[in-house]
Amino acid sequence: MRIAIDAMGGDHAPKSTVEGALAAAKEWSDIEVILVGDKEALEPLILDAPPNLRIHHAGEVIEPEDEPVKAVRRKKDASMVVAGRLVREGKADAMISAGNTGALMTTGLLVVGRMEGIERPALAPMIPTVDERGVLALDLGANMDAKPEHLAQYALMGSIYRQKVHGIANPRVGLLNVGTEPGKGNELTKVAYPLIQEMPINFVGNVEARDVLTGACDVLVCDGFAGNILLKSLEGTAGTIFSLLKKEFSKSLKNKLAAAVLMPSLRNMKKTLDYKEHGGAPLLGLSGLVVKGHGSSDGGAIKNAVRQARTAIQGRLTESISNEISGKRVTE
Amino acid sequence: MRIAIDAMGGDHAPKSTVEGALAAAKEWSDIEVILVGDKEALEPLILDAPPNLRIHHAGEVIEPEDEPVKAVRRKKDASMVVAGRLVREGKADAMISAGNTGALMTTGLLVVGRMEGIERPALAPMIPTVDERGVLALDLGANMDAKPEHLAQYALMGSIYRQKVHGIANPRVGLLNVGTEPGKGNELTKVAYPLIQEMPINFVGNVEARDVLTGACDVLVCDGFAGNILLKSLEGTAGTIFSLLKKEFSKSLKNKLAAAVLMPSLRNMKKTLDYKEHGGAPLLGLSGLVVKGHGSSDGGAIKNAVRQARTAIQGRLTESISNEISGKRVTE
Repeated sequence: MRIAIDAMGGDHAPKSTVEGALAAAKEWSDIEVILVGDKEALEPLILDAPPNLRIHHAGEVIEPEDEPVKAVRRKKDASMVVAGRLVREGKADAMISAGNTGALMTTGLLVVGRMEGIERPALAPMIPTVDERGVLALDLGANMDAKPEHLAQYALMGSIYRQKVHGIANPRVGLLNVGTEPGKGNELTKVAYPLIQEMPINFVGNVEARDVLTGACDVLVCDGFAGNILLKSLEGTAGTIFSLLKKEFSKSLKNKLAAAVLMPSLRNMKKTLDYKEHGGAPLLGLSGLVVKGHGSSDGGAIKNAVRQARTAIQGRLTESISNEISGKRVTE
Repeated sequence: MRIAIDAMGGDHAPKSTVEGALAAAKEWSDIEVILVGDKEALEPLILDAPPNLRIHHAGEVIEPEDEPVKAVRRKKDASMVVAGRLVREGKADAMISAGNTGALMTTGLLVVGRMEGIERPALAPMIPTVDERGVLALDLGANMDAKPEHLAQYALMGSIYRQKVHGIANPRVGLLNVGTEPGKGNELTKVAYPLIQEMPINFVGNVEARDVLTGACDVLVCDGFAGNILLKSLEGTAGTIFSLLKKEFSKSLKNKLAAAVLMPSLRNMKKTLDYKEHGGAPLLGLSGLVVKGHGSSDGGAIKNAVRQARTAIQGRLTESISNEISGKRVTE
């Protein structure tokens, strides 16, 4: 299994990516880690490299502020683009990047390429839940507008991912909606509902935004716009409450002392609700595996993304999705 | 000013509605409160009625589980429908109901009637913010699908409401979106953005879901679907965090003692974020004023809704919206 890492992508790259790559290569001898990036910048960081780690030189870098489509088209030797090309050409089984999100989605579409039968690849991060299972939400930002058929494909891809990568036997797939009854929603969700019902998955129906955090489903299907509103609202509310708590808890000496006692509990809770703890987000529906790491990924997060990619490759994720999609298309 | 109250609507009606009506009639001598409902049920509850309170009999009741359109069409003598008819016929300047939300929106559309030039009336509740100004969000549930022109009308109506009812001189109007830069969003928000720019309001551009709670704007414009996702996600996240806190804080005696010290602070915070504290939600864009009270309204909440209606009538809210809309149409 060959896993390419965009060594130059992310707020803490290349330190974070090298650390993660080294740790992963040492832990799993059945993978080959390909660090894609500037050889001269990377070599000094790598001492005592294990035999299953190598550098693949790429001379350019896509910056966080680059305009995605332009950057991917023009910077043909950028580490992210080169990593994508390795996947496209079958020289790597997966790629990981913590770089510019828009550019990574563009690399997925233009360099790696769509899977046959998939109209719109989807970005599928985990949203934390109170029961700590988490929920895979898709699409979260790859496509702002979706058609009902896209939502049905998201449902299928998400269900397969949860089975293959997280080992969940019969993932509960829900449709993000404004009420639980069938027939609720906007035009998009009303038409998508019966299409999702036809999929060979465990569709549990509509799920309201307020029930996502408590773990109402394992896969949450939504268009990229609604998904963004959901995730940002969740993050914003949690962040706001924790900063209000901090303010209230430091109002008096009495409060400060009491808060100190509760601090471990609060830290625990904050961690439970921190989506950054939940690993990388796969871009599903491409002809090869692409995993997006959070921009602020450290070495541990990069190593976790490698673990994810390794499990997905072992589970033959891409082939499974492709088979289901083409099977589905044949029977239509 | 004559304000009709659907005396039979709400979880705690008619006790809550009678209490609220009595308190309002006693506080404001410049209004006439019309309690619409079953005379026999209401009369025993009203002792010592002030002269500016009277009962208008209505023999039927729309129940929470009634199908909205059917109920409004068939129960012509329902308290909610009769109150709507009083507004339509100019016998009341406003109506308030804490009953079946769908039925109230139907009453607004079919009985009170749309304002000329308005395609879609909008439900506009307040979402609490940390700075305690709150944000008026519309549409939150009257229409699941919106066209760009509807969003532009929401922006105008919301701005006028904040001026007339809350006395905000130059309300900041934001468009709920996935990023702050113009050009971000789905088809709907991309097309709506320049239309909102043309409105005679203080448009501050796109607002992300995570910035709503911190008070990024005074009026938040969105379609009913996205608005529902936002509000339910906010409620769900806050509710989940408070129940996690409760659980963590009762884990040990030490924690319980510390939590007891912080309890007043926590209660304060919870109250700050409780949308029920923020009064009734107007249905904007009708030919008369309709205010929706929360289903769990008590007497105090009903009185607050009367206060809102009174301020709106004093500010000539409906006429102001109508003038702006027709002015706008004339200049096109």
